[in-house]
Amino acid sequence: MFADDALTDDAFLSGRLRLWQPAQGYRAATDPVLLAAACPARAGDRVLDLGCGAGAAALCLGTRVAGLHLTGLELQPAYADLARRNASRNGMALEVIEGDLRQVPLALRREFDQVVCNPPYYPPGGTPSPTPARAVAMQVDEVPLADWLRAAARRLRPGGWLTMITGADALPELLGNLGTLGSAAVLPLAARTGREAKRVILRARKGGRARFRLLPPLILHSGAAHEGDREAYTPEANAILRMGCDLSAQFS
Amino acid sequence: MFADDALTDDAFLSGRLRLWQPAQGYRAATDPVLLAAACPARAGDRVLDLGCGAGAAALCLGTRVAGLHLTGLELQPAYADLARRNASRNGMALEVIEGDLRQVPLALRREFDQVVCNPPYYPPGGTPSPTPARAVAMQVDEVPLADWLRAAARRLRPGGWLTMITGADALPELLGNLGTLGSAAVLPLAARTGREAKRVILRARKGGRARFRLLPPLILHSGAAHEGDREAYTPEANAILRMGCDLSAQFS
Repeated sequence: MFADDALTDDAFLSGRLRLWQPAQGYRAATDPVLLAAACPARAGDRVLDLGCGAGAAALCLGTRVAGLHLTGLELQPAYADLARRNASRNGMALEVIEGDLRQVPLALRREFDQVVCNPPYYPPGGTPSPTPARAVAMQVDEVPLADWLRAAARRLRPGGWLTMITGADALPELLGNLGTLGSAAVLPLAARTGREAKRVILRARKGGRARFRLLPPLILHSGAAHEGDREAYTPEANAILRMGCDLSAQFS
Repeated sequence: MFADDALTDDAFLSGRLRLWQPAQGYRAATDPVLLAAACPARAGDRVLDLGCGAGAAALCLGTRVAGLHLTGLELQPAYADLARRNASRNGMALEVIEGDLRQVPLALRREFDQVVCNPPYYPPGGTPSPTPARAVAMQVDEVPLADWLRAAARRLRPGGWLTMITGADALPELLGNLGTLGSAAVLPLAARTGREAKRVILRARKGGRARFRLLPPLILHSGAAHEGDREAYTPEANAILRMGCDLSAQFS
């Protein structure tokens, strides 16, 4: 378990969601908000957050869409515990199951309408963190994306959606291992107009037959370069990150 | 062979290149110009145009970069003949070899510094053309992209570049079959700002180890919608399509 003084208290979605996060180790920022915004969940849907960490993506989604049945799978008990605490403090029901996505626990062997997934990511040129939790995350990182995709596809009902955020450099591995996932679309996320996409959101449907689509990039920051301490978001990014709007229009 | 009255005379690169093309069947438009603009060939390079058709890509490239050794492989004798005529009328040396990329002729079993490739493309929702040449192109279309990629990789020297233009919907097939091609980058081509990319240019290097990159889209047309008979190109597209500029800056 994380000691309280090892945690920070962070606001998401203009403070509508507050999350305890470890001061060191993996810390959610914009990724889970963008991921949750791209998931086409509707009231009543059973949603699985694969590798839920402290629960950021599932709880962002639960904040945006009412009436979801939220479940998280998390390898590290300390994060699973934190996800439960975070759900509780925000008044949301989130079932958190501890286990490895490569050997899914019996308690998780059922179908979901939606799977969201933000696999641990080791940026090109980055250096490993010395903290133990981060070290585990680094090992998790070594689980190939193909395994994440396979686990997601197995848990989805036919016609159910996977929504995943990863580094853009992982696209060949991602698109080369879609398996039974079809009707895929990729939304590039670029820091600014004219910059290459560092992150991408993949949406794909189990058994989908529609052609693959490469969407126009979502530009996160306005202006040509970083301007001072506070980054200026584009109106589109602001609507998603601060106002909790969804990203459905980008995928339609 | 095509009868003269079955051909049209088309200008490329502001008329610096003139090509005979069959009035019916596959007709090159902007794709080979964009493809040639993205190929990082330098004087002295041996360049192979896989499936060269009437020679548009190879001859666009030869117009832009002097001192290349240009070779084309073409399945259909009538197109191979046309490519030779087109090279001759533009004063360029283009060796055209007839054969199937799945069984590369002995005359082609050597190494190239550059391979360019514009595989026949069957747009989603399109209908087959009734003309015989088009019908063959449709059959060629059924050659999986994996075979095109394998043929390209086999003909490249280590460190040599493949540059390929395809439909964006083919990205999963493309990125899932890179094989020995690495350091891949994808340039999305979008008709207008905010539209999804219908075409993509892939650049990859034999034995390359750099991470995959998803580049910002090249926008072809200015304005929000089609305006009248003559399309307004963006300044970037105009520089490439009319003035023969290269696309290297987009990939750097």
